[in-house]
Formats: sequence, C-alpha cells, structure tokens
Amino acid sequence: MSLLVIGTVAFDAIETPFGKTDKIVGGSATFASLGASYFYDRIKIVAVVGDDFPQSEIEDLQKHNVNTEGLQIKKGEKSFFWSGRYHNDMNSRDTLTTELNVLEAFDPIIPHSYQDCEYLMLGNLSPQVQQTVISRLTNRPKLIVMDTMNFWMDIAFDELLATIKLVDVLTINDAEARQLSGEFSLVKAARKILTMGPKFVIIKKGEHGALLFHEDKIFSAPALPLAEVFDPTGAGDTFAGGFIGYLAKVGTVSFDNMKNAIIFGSALASFCVEKFGSEKLRNLSQQEISARVQEFIGLAKFEIEL
Amino acid sequence: MSLLVIGTVAFDAIETPFGKTDKIVGGSATFASLGASYFYDRIKIVAVVGDDFPQSEIEDLQKHNVNTEGLQIKKGEKSFFWSGRYHNDMNSRDTLTTELNVLEAFDPIIPHSYQDCEYLMLGNLSPQVQQTVISRLTNRPKLIVMDTMNFWMDIAFDELLATIKLVDVLTINDAEARQLSGEFSLVKAARKILTMGPKFVIIKKGEHGALLFHEDKIFSAPALPLAEVFDPTGAGDTFAGGFIGYLAKVGTVSFDNMKNAIIFGSALASFCVEKFGSEKLRNLSQQEISARVQEFIGLAKFEIEL
Repeated sequence: MSLLVIGTVAFDAIETPFGKTDKIVGGSATFASLGASYFYDRIKIVAVVGDDFPQSEIEDLQKHNVNTEGLQIKKGEKSFFWSGRYHNDMNSRDTLTTELNVLEAFDPIIPHSYQDCEYLMLGNLSPQVQQTVISRLTNRPKLIVMDTMNFWMDIAFDELLATIKLVDVLTINDAEARQLSGEFSLVKAARKILTMGPKFVIIKKGEHGALLFHEDKIFSAPALPLAEVFDPTGAGDTFAGGFIGYLAKVGTVSFDNMKNAIIFGSALASFCVEKFGSEKLRNLSQQEISARVQEFIGLAKFEIEL
Repeated sequence: MSLLVIGTVAFDAIETPFGKTDKIVGGSATFASLGASYFYDRIKIVAVVGDDFPQSEIEDLQKHNVNTEGLQIKKGEKSFFWSGRYHNDMNSRDTLTTELNVLEAFDPIIPHSYQDCEYLMLGNLSPQVQQTVISRLTNRPKLIVMDTMNFWMDIAFDELLATIKLVDVLTINDAEARQLSGEFSLVKAARKILTMGPKFVIIKKGEHGALLFHEDKIFSAPALPLAEVFDPTGAGDTFAGGFIGYLAKVGTVSFDNMKNAIIFGSALASFCVEKFGSEKLRNLSQQEISARVQEFIGLAKFEIEL
C-alpha cells in the first residue's frame, strides 16, 4: 500500500516583487510529495531529471519518506527548467523561459515495487503521460487525484478530456474551471466537470480558498488571509499533495474526510508561499502544522442556533 | 430604541445579460431597511424622494416595519435615478445615467422621534451627509455601521476619511479596501483601515464571501455558490442591512455576534441577487431565511480533531 506521485522534478528560477532566485529545485512532483510527506510515509515518485540534478536533493526527498526508485536520471541530459516573473498582485505571472529538456521524451516507467499503489497523485504534467501511468498500473488505485493547468487545455484538449475521464478527483483553479467548462459560474462549471468523469471537483481560488463539489454537495474552505505572499510557486501542487497525503493516512475516502483533507492541504500550501520555492516545506514540524490548522478552524467557525 | 437607516431611496433601471427593467425602486436605504426588516421591527429611515415616488412603495416600506417619518418628499422634484448595465461576468458594470435630482441638496433632517436610535446604518451616500447625521444625533448610537463606495474615494476623499473616523464598523468591497488603504494585501488593507477609526472592518468579496477584521482576529465567511446571479444591484446594501438588523435584534455587539450577523446578512444578500432590484426582498418568510442560513452552515462546516 502506497501513494504514488507523478509529476515534474525540475529547476525553477523565480522573480517576485520581493526578490529573485537562481535555479532552485521545484516541480509538481517535488511540491506534491513534500506536501504529502507530512501525513504519510509510503510515498513513491515517478519523474525524470537530467544528470545536472543534485544527488543531495534526491537524498532530501528520501529523508521525507519519498521512494525515488522511479526517479529516472538521464545521463548527459538536462532537467526541466522553468523561469517566471510574478506581477505585483502575485496572482498573475509571465513565463520567461520553459526548457523541456528531459521532459520532451519522458516515458513514465513504473517500477514493479510501485504496483501496490492505492493512492495516485497525477501532478501537473502532460495529460498523455498522466494517462500512461494509469494504464500501466495493474490494479486501479482506490483514489486517483489529478491536477492540471490551462497550458494543457490550450495545446492538448482532447488528451486532457480523455485523462479527466479516468480520475476520481480533479483539482483545478477558478479560471481553468471556467476555461474547461465554458461556464462562467463556478457552480455550473463544476457541475459540467462532474459529468466529464471525476466524482469530485476541487476549484482552487487562491487567496479566496477552495470549493469542493460532489454530487449536489458543496464545501467552501477558507484561505488563511496572509499579509505577505512571498512566492506562490508550487502552492497548488503542495495543496494537492497534502490533500491526498492526508486521505492516504486516514485510509477512507469520504466527503467529510475530503473536507478535512482540503484544510490540511490548504495549511501546507499556506506555508509554501512564505518562502521561495519549496524551502519552507523542508523542515516543518507537526506542531507548526497543527497550529496552522487551528488557525483555519478559528477563521471559519461560527455558531448559529436556528 | 430603534435602528436608524440613512441612504438613498431611488429609481434604478438595470440591464443584465438576463434582461432589463424600466425604472424600479432601489437605493441603499431601501435595500438596507428591507434587509434589516427580517430581523428587527423598529426601523426608522431618513432619505429624500421627489413627488414622482409612488405612495404605494412608501406603504410597502411601512408594512416592513419601516417608519417613514424621516422620508422627505420634495414637491415638484424628481427622485434620484441611476441606470447601469452589468457585464457578462456580473462583477463589473457601466453606469449609463446618474441623475442626482433631489439628492443634490439633501439635508438629512432627523425627526425628534428618531433620537432614541441605538443602531445607525449609514447606507451608501455622500460622506458629508453621513457625517451630518451623526452630528445631529443627541446621543451617540451604540453602534454605527457605514457603507461606502469607490465613487466617494474619487471625489470626496478627505470628507470620507473624516466620516470613517467616527464609525464603529466599515463595510467595503475588496477593490475599495485596496483603494482606500493603498495596500494590495487585504490583511494589510484591513489593518490600515482599523487605524483610521473603525473597530471592525468587513471586506465584502462578492462570490468569495466576506472577511471580518477586529483587533488581531479574522473571520472568513463563505458566500453561497450560486448557479445564477440574476441582478447584483443592492446586494451590498442588503447585506449591511441584514447585518445591523440582526445585531439590533440580538442587542449585544460582540465579535461572535458579528460573525453570525455576517452570515444572516449574506443569506439576505443571496436572495437579493435572485431577482431584479428588491423584488425578492419583499416577501421572504422566516422559513426561507432559516433554510438559507442552514445552507451556509452546511457549506462551511468541517470537523477536525487535533
């Protein structure tokens, strides 16, 4: 029994109004597996890097209970590299560079020891590769969570729809939910996406929290109001990783457990944005996480007797 | 003991993607007093209309427990008229016409019988007029809630600041909070506004709910996710009216009561947007309101044991 995370392990170079970084380690699988690692200890990763990727970073993932047998290291090739600049509002960004490198011909090979996977996190990556991973698992996992982004809607819409059809939970931001569904109202957008395959849709609204839709039920999760967002890179991946990691720990998939999973995922994401890249996710304590979750509880609590 | 509402009583002509209206009755005091009327029955209004304003509409306010002794009817003059067109996203609108008419020389005379006012709702109106009302009350009310909008920041910033200084609660939308404070982060914006006079700031975020700030405490209220927003006109006024009406009913001003007041105000506002103008607010039952509040409770509820 394990949680399989696929996605990118990569280099990012980030500029925000607060400063800039040289190449630092990022990628959807990095953030998602670090996020999950605070709740669950049998995480397995499938991703690809070049031989420019530091061994110390791989060891750091291993220290976070991430099995890296499925992390391919391509000799003589370079890791995926993205650089971007955030605007003053921190909600929008320009991509400065995208070098696919090893990602161009990524074949997601699943080690035999990974076939016990019960929880599958399809981190943001080409929908074709996400689908290949599902097809290579002998037994369908108990829960498949998929994250994606507008980029794939623009260039691979049909493949994206084919992959969405196969998953249980889709996590997507509000603008992307509108783009995917062609509906402006998020309620209508979610209802439409629920007819595309997933039984659950999570619409991430950044500083406005998240909405979970399932059948005719809706849960509205708050976001922690932050005075400073230092770097939003990876917050969505961290959220998704924390979400599925919490569910893997609890072991039962239900609407109520998903509500809590969203709160824990949001708490992890709120740490992520406090420093550049994944820095803040490297050394969190359970006490810090509990205190942060307690803040979410206080934030949303009201008591009305009707 | 009473709740005094000041603001506009006016005609609106509204175009939305769903249709358009001829002149219908609107105005901040109309929406706010209707909103408050579902919780409290000693509402008194100060506003001005022309003699084009239908007597039947005044009687309808009276049926909602609104004392209209302070509603001035100017012979031979016309009521304030606004017309606007909402864009497809229903979040932005263009003003097509603004005819101030009776508002141009509005002197807010407070009838002697209104001097028992304990709760004061300063609905959206010129900050100069709002301030005059405060100065004409012999005893300072127990709670003064002020609503305003960007228009007054653009043309009467100093008067606005002088009025804000005198109130207990400021309700404002997110873009206006940013404009008023010069801060992008809503946390920083609210902190700054809390140094300007009010002890409580409510930032209205439309479809994303509302945030209440007081000292170092924050409450995040959800919005009801709606498939259709038919006409957002008056939703903010209705929210503010429901908010102060609930507090007047409860009779104790505290952070916890304000949290509940925000939920009740939001529930009223969620009805308001379902039809054109104030139509939906004319005949709500307590059962409908309770059921709607129950939806808010279900929407935001989660249970985490740490």
